[in-house]
Amino acid sequence: MPGAGEFEIIARYFAPLSRGAPLAFGLTDDAAMLLPRKGRGLVMTADAIVAGVHFLPDDPPDLIARKLLRVNLSDLAAKGATPRGYLLTAAFPQDVAPGWIAAFARGLRTDQKRFGIVLLGGDTVATPGPASFSVTMIGEVPGRRMLRRSGARAGDLVCVSGTIGDGGFGLAELGHAHEGLAAAQRRFLIDRYRLPRPRTTLGPLLRNVAGAALDVSDGLVQDLGHIARQSGTRLTIEAGAVPLSPAGRAIVRADPSALGRALTAGDDYEIAFTVTKARLGALKATAHRAGVPVSVIGRVERGAGVRVLGAGGEVIEAGPGGFDHFAR
Amino acid sequence: MPGAGEFEIIARYFAPLSRGAPLAFGLTDDAAMLLPRKGRGLVMTADAIVAGVHFLPDDPPDLIARKLLRVNLSDLAAKGATPRGYLLTAAFPQDVAPGWIAAFARGLRTDQKRFGIVLLGGDTVATPGPASFSVTMIGEVPGRRMLRRSGARAGDLVCVSGTIGDGGFGLAELGHAHEGLAAAQRRFLIDRYRLPRPRTTLGPLLRNVAGAALDVSDGLVQDLGHIARQSGTRLTIEAGAVPLSPAGRAIVRADPSALGRALTAGDDYEIAFTVTKARLGALKATAHRAGVPVSVIGRVERGAGVRVLGAGGEVIEAGPGGFDHFAR
Repeated sequence: MPGAGEFEIIARYFAPLSRGAPLAFGLTDDAAMLLPRKGRGLVMTADAIVAGVHFLPDDPPDLIARKLLRVNLSDLAAKGATPRGYLLTAAFPQDVAPGWIAAFARGLRTDQKRFGIVLLGGDTVATPGPASFSVTMIGEVPGRRMLRRSGARAGDLVCVSGTIGDGGFGLAELGHAHEGLAAAQRRFLIDRYRLPRPRTTLGPLLRNVAGAALDVSDGLVQDLGHIARQSGTRLTIEAGAVPLSPAGRAIVRADPSALGRALTAGDDYEIAFTVTKARLGALKATAHRAGVPVSVIGRVERGAGVRVLGAGGEVIEAGPGGFDHFAR
Repeated sequence: MPGAGEFEIIARYFAPLSRGAPLAFGLTDDAAMLLPRKGRGLVMTADAIVAGVHFLPDDPPDLIARKLLRVNLSDLAAKGATPRGYLLTAAFPQDVAPGWIAAFARGLRTDQKRFGIVLLGGDTVATPGPASFSVTMIGEVPGRRMLRRSGARAGDLVCVSGTIGDGGFGLAELGHAHEGLAAAQRRFLIDRYRLPRPRTTLGPLLRNVAGAALDVSDGLVQDLGHIARQSGTRLTIEAGAVPLSPAGRAIVRADPSALGRALTAGDDYEIAFTVTKARLGALKATAHRAGVPVSVIGRVERGAGVRVLGAGGEVIEAGPGGFDHFAR
């Protein structure tokens, strides 16, 4: 980085992002303070992204930054937590252009405003490898009331917010276009891949109605598998009940096998959760209040694992599915 | 990683490290909870390290892990905070050997026990680049009583714990041996480079006596510059008063110019701080209680910047010095 050192990068691009967090001290110290409000527990989550693995090196830097925040915000939302702030460690290639960092910081600023969070601290280093970033996002819940994966009980209903498959279809669109899609639908899908919509309004409201919850990031079937395992239950899903966007429906109409990809592809950043039948009315009111569509897609049963049923009630092989960074 | 996926790595190597943190849920959830104790503020710091930049790729993995924790513990110590736990994001090369991860996890476990901390959460990804790791370390102070860089006042004394220069000399030893050093002294210096001794006992005790404080990681002169800048003061240091280890003294005896390197080389992980003259007695009692030697090395004056004085009171050019990841 000709002419700009680590401290200059922090002072110029990152310190302004800590305004609004008086105990971050403008990033002029080695550490920040956070004073939890009375009776609140802190919920913390961390995610790392690497160029060439989690984003494409020529993706717009502001979108990379916003996606980085949003995948962490999605984790917090699914835990029922209200986000407060984050720490960022950034490893930039030695020859990174100042304009790239500036655009990245602009993206952070945009989504800090949108989601009401501030930069609390972090670290900036140079790397001989690809750009990589790590965020620790911190939120609050009353007491210990974090939603967990282990709260599903036989007899509960399985639900999901929004639509499933758009992120995966969007990533595929970047490689090869699906046949018969309108240009607006293509743009919609690619946008959903590049810029997740974390359910930060719905999430905290779900604390009062949901049993188990998680965000759908690695693929619906794989992620529901975590709920099944941690709750000691089986989850049975009806493929036809999984909500698709108009673009997703168009793709599945042209190629019915695409439905399997929607169920396993990941990058949805919706919330999958369970609810007792008695609370279904309360859930509908909650979804209305959050302005987020919620669909019942299955049920919790005794047993283990995740089953996906087709239109005739037959078991569909959805595979282990999901995205595993070390899979070969 | 043949045969082992992301979830298996977490379950096998990292989940056991979260024992003792019941609200980390054995890393089976996307997030962990932390309930601050009554009247405590949280202090948070983050550091990232990259293979080939912050550690050597053939360094022993357990030592890399321990150094990673210790550089963060050093930051917290200098803020007067008592560490509680950490989040770790790990980017392993795709072909990382399971034995490497196992040794890395052993190193984490060793220092978790030594410093009374637990793993709270994190993320594990694969990278096409060098191994890199990021830690967010979380500690506590009573109320808002974090030590800061901005607390120095003209008339205060400048102090430092332990000895300065050993880490830098140790790194140099890995490249070329200094003349006239005994083998035990070489081993001492290299060990100091590889395994910092964060001042976790002294740090919290300094809350009652120190004005400004930070940990010496980028080089004494550069780091004192942060105190000068954030406090709006000048710091004047007597080079002859800076404490050296026997090995450091042997090197400087053979080559007096090595003293400049000791003052600027970094990797000391001692605490530099200021104290009023009236509190010097209390400081000595505190140092005795912590079992850590503390030296007065200079004074705080009106003005700006850091001056280093030689034996005759002449100003020594110590240069901007210090380690800047983006410097060319």
